[in-house]
Amino acid sequence: MRWLLTVQYLGTRYAGWQIQHNARTVQEVLERSLERLCRQPVRLHGAGRTDAGVHAFAQTAHADVPIAIDARGIILGLNGMLPDDIRVTHAAPVSDDFHARFDAISKTYVYRIWNDRVTDVFRAPTHAHVFQPLHVDRMRSAAGPLLGNHDFRSFTVARPEVSSTRRTIHRLRIDNDRSRIRIEISADGFLRFMVRRIVGSLIEVGRGNLSEAALGEALEPRFGVARWTAPAHGLMLVRIDYAPISEPVFT
Amino acid sequence: MRWLLTVQYLGTRYAGWQIQHNARTVQEVLERSLERLCRQPVRLHGAGRTDAGVHAFAQTAHADVPIAIDARGIILGLNGMLPDDIRVTHAAPVSDDFHARFDAISKTYVYRIWNDRVTDVFRAPTHAHVFQPLHVDRMRSAAGPLLGNHDFRSFTVARPEVSSTRRTIHRLRIDNDRSRIRIEISADGFLRFMVRRIVGSLIEVGRGNLSEAALGEALEPRFGVARWTAPAHGLMLVRIDYAPISEPVFT
Repeated sequence: MRWLLTVQYLGTRYAGWQIQHNARTVQEVLERSLERLCRQPVRLHGAGRTDAGVHAFAQTAHADVPIAIDARGIILGLNGMLPDDIRVTHAAPVSDDFHARFDAISKTYVYRIWNDRVTDVFRAPTHAHVFQPLHVDRMRSAAGPLLGNHDFRSFTVARPEVSSTRRTIHRLRIDNDRSRIRIEISADGFLRFMVRRIVGSLIEVGRGNLSEAALGEALEPRFGVARWTAPAHGLMLVRIDYAPISEPVFT
Repeated sequence: MRWLLTVQYLGTRYAGWQIQHNARTVQEVLERSLERLCRQPVRLHGAGRTDAGVHAFAQTAHADVPIAIDARGIILGLNGMLPDDIRVTHAAPVSDDFHARFDAISKTYVYRIWNDRVTDVFRAPTHAHVFQPLHVDRMRSAAGPLLGNHDFRSFTVARPEVSSTRRTIHRLRIDNDRSRIRIEISADGFLRFMVRRIVGSLIEVGRGNLSEAALGEALEPRFGVARWTAPAHGLMLVRIDYAPISEPVFT
């Protein structure tokens, strides 16, 4: 039966989600636990690839689990074998044609900044530290033009396999509460480094090094420069939404 | 000049506050940084000893700093040398007879519990995980008799150097918000393991393994058993209060 798993991880000790040679990844550690649970190799298909050091509050992935088991058995079985920094929080049976990546209609990332002269030892693993005071109002104003459907090629790296660099950002919200700044971005999909490059430019606007117009000018037709990449450890994949048609089918 | 430092640390990698042989402690790491800053050994006197693995949001300590330097210089100088999991957040000049430990009139600890079937990877470093559902109302009711001045000898280990085991708890508050339980305890002082033993017993009450009367019965005159010690990593020293007379003197 095909299952959709929701996975939480602290990305600090991982070279990202996707399996690769000579580096420890979240997918690899999860597949190894699935293999032990099922006593045969099981392939996991993630909704998205998070980069090295990026965290997930709720990454999703599907797998065809070849043994008879219920959600509780999957959750407890896998968590009993996983290291402390990876947890399966939900498991739901889905239809055989469901695909964690292709059926996702929206993804949401949160970027966290600790904006204070002194770092906070408890927030350091999940917040980027910026010690110069940031002008949050300027950042909000600079972010406005990004909403909607645009060509975000300035905010990514060239990858020949990506056919289109157009994406639709349907939500971009910047909240701040004293030293904490939280940037939430939802889109139908993200290009590589897209969130970190948007945030990197927003931080430069907040510092006063870039004009409020700079992000809008990095979109078509001017495709200005947006080459500041905010550090990975401030980024967290927080939600993946699916269309009602491919919602988990509870049996 | 004598300075009062406020220090934040993630206790995970430390064998507690106090210097000891063959183990890395917070005091030792701080004193080494002070020595580098001042080019001579400087002794640091902490307000309290936290045990191995216990965190501090605001530990305090005083030191006689033998060089001419301002608060900014101390904070930036030390933080530039300290590892990521220790930070000096404030520095204030105090009178020469001020003592971080003896002048403290109240200390506050917070104990955090993650009460859910599955651990939370982001909260795991600072929350004790209890997977059985806890009855928080029973815990609150059990904690009531601890308020006030009592002999807490049942909640500590025998230590010949401690002359009295009487302490005054002037605040004990248990909050919960879905899976998070937060226990805040303020007292004029704490015996070794006192908070962790109070919390350990409260957790047993919450699980239904101990009666609501058990904690009250562990006080005089019965001195019943209270031998459950909650894990160190859920505990955080959050505040130390000083009497107005020994408040930091800003020069």
